[in-house]
Amino acid sequence: MANKFGVVGIGLIGGSMAKSLPAEVSVWDSNNHSLEAAKALGIHAAASLDDLVNTVDVLFVCVPFEAFESVFEQVQQAAARREKPILVSNVLSVMHEAEVSEPNVRFVAGHPMAGTEFSGFDAAKVGLFENATWVFSTGEPELEAITKRLGATPVVLAPEAHNQIVAKISHLPHVLAAAQLLAISDSKATYELAASSFRDSTRVASSAPELTAGMVNNNREEVLRSIESLKGVLDEFADLLGTKDDAGVKALFERAKKLRDTNLQ
Amino acid sequence: MANKFGVVGIGLIGGSMAKSLPAEVSVWDSNNHSLEAAKALGIHAAASLDDLVNTVDVLFVCVPFEAFESVFEQVQQAAARREKPILVSNVLSVMHEAEVSEPNVRFVAGHPMAGTEFSGFDAAKVGLFENATWVFSTGEPELEAITKRLGATPVVLAPEAHNQIVAKISHLPHVLAAAQLLAISDSKATYELAASSFRDSTRVASSAPELTAGMVNNNREEVLRSIESLKGVLDEFADLLGTKDDAGVKALFERAKKLRDTNLQ
Repeated sequence: MANKFGVVGIGLIGGSMAKSLPAEVSVWDSNNHSLEAAKALGIHAAASLDDLVNTVDVLFVCVPFEAFESVFEQVQQAAARREKPILVSNVLSVMHEAEVSEPNVRFVAGHPMAGTEFSGFDAAKVGLFENATWVFSTGEPELEAITKRLGATPVVLAPEAHNQIVAKISHLPHVLAAAQLLAISDSKATYELAASSFRDSTRVASSAPELTAGMVNNNREEVLRSIESLKGVLDEFADLLGTKDDAGVKALFERAKKLRDTNLQ
Repeated sequence: MANKFGVVGIGLIGGSMAKSLPAEVSVWDSNNHSLEAAKALGIHAAASLDDLVNTVDVLFVCVPFEAFESVFEQVQQAAARREKPILVSNVLSVMHEAEVSEPNVRFVAGHPMAGTEFSGFDAAKVGLFENATWVFSTGEPELEAITKRLGATPVVLAPEAHNQIVAKISHLPHVLAAAQLLAISDSKATYELAASSFRDSTRVASSAPELTAGMVNNNREEVLRSIESLKGVLDEFADLLGTKDDAGVKALFERAKKLRDTNLQ
């Protein structure tokens, strides 16, 4: 057990960690159905969260925003009874330094840049982190080693920089996906014509609303800034369309294509 | 030859039609490279556009916006020398009734709701139209039969209604994909963290800019209306975020998820 790492919360992220490295983890989840499903796959389950904290030296807290504070508090209380320190990380899409009151706990915020529009242990899958970037607030070899075994590339980034970036490349796309649907409302004829561009640009709107709202509400200022800056570009498009500047519109699409083809291959 | 239909312009759309029904088409394209590639696949190529118009009774003009008028004019001139009428359709993402001056030509605007971010004959593929909707401005059994053999479902819709809908489900997604990239500009660190949500929501920004600009510029009024209505929803998000109304933000994501899950399965 000493060389296993712990995962509390086996939804999409924690569950995919467990399914990807089943021999290396010990898990716990307050959802009994998920826990039984994990056991059925041969994954070791702790008897309780306290038991998990007692038996591993590295713990990933993979619970959503609204649950994090109370679970982390419970982890700290359990850690107080340990003889040596425990290293704790999390997987929230907004990074904050957690308030650590227990000397036995060392906390490093983490965020794997991977996901799907589905959630829960059943949606968790082997290989979810292959080729993904995994951001940590501080360099920490033990955490980085685990994420590498999951196929990810660890990157160290200050929480502020991370939160600015995810507002643009994750939280704003979620807002835009929802906004496109809300702007259409429920016209049957409209959806009948939807092809791949609309399906892809709205895919993440099928995500669990509590998870999406959690990330957007916890990164309020940066998301607001991203919305403003996107609206600025939309105004630029609207101005060019309004003045029938066909070449100007084309030039914007040319710049965008160059940015994507250069940076996302 | 009499029971073949013609395709002029074998880019992504026309090329996919030809590759999907190679025994049923006769093609022509001003690009010799594409024409040779089609011949190499055993697809029959006409000697010229005039030759094609002479030898088929149904013709799909699959050229982009800027080429359509002149190609259609040439089709009409060639059709004048025919003994019986020719039925002509097109595949532009904005529908207009073409100005028909030749009594031998019957024109029905068409638009297959299918595509990828790639273009040209090499990107064309068998099965591109499987399960796609193919819109026609008028019901026309001969055209509908061909699109059904391509795996598509023909739908009749007035040009105005079609143009309104595609502004929302195709042209706006293209504008938003570009706008997200333009709002970020070229920060390396930002792209390093991009995961599937950003890749999907910007995918169509890799499309050929002249094609994207063509559709947006040719559907100016409707695209402007869609931008305005999207900005309205973004303002709603921004208001709720600004007043820290977490439940209100979640409610928007809930409505959006319901719209997508109900209408896009």
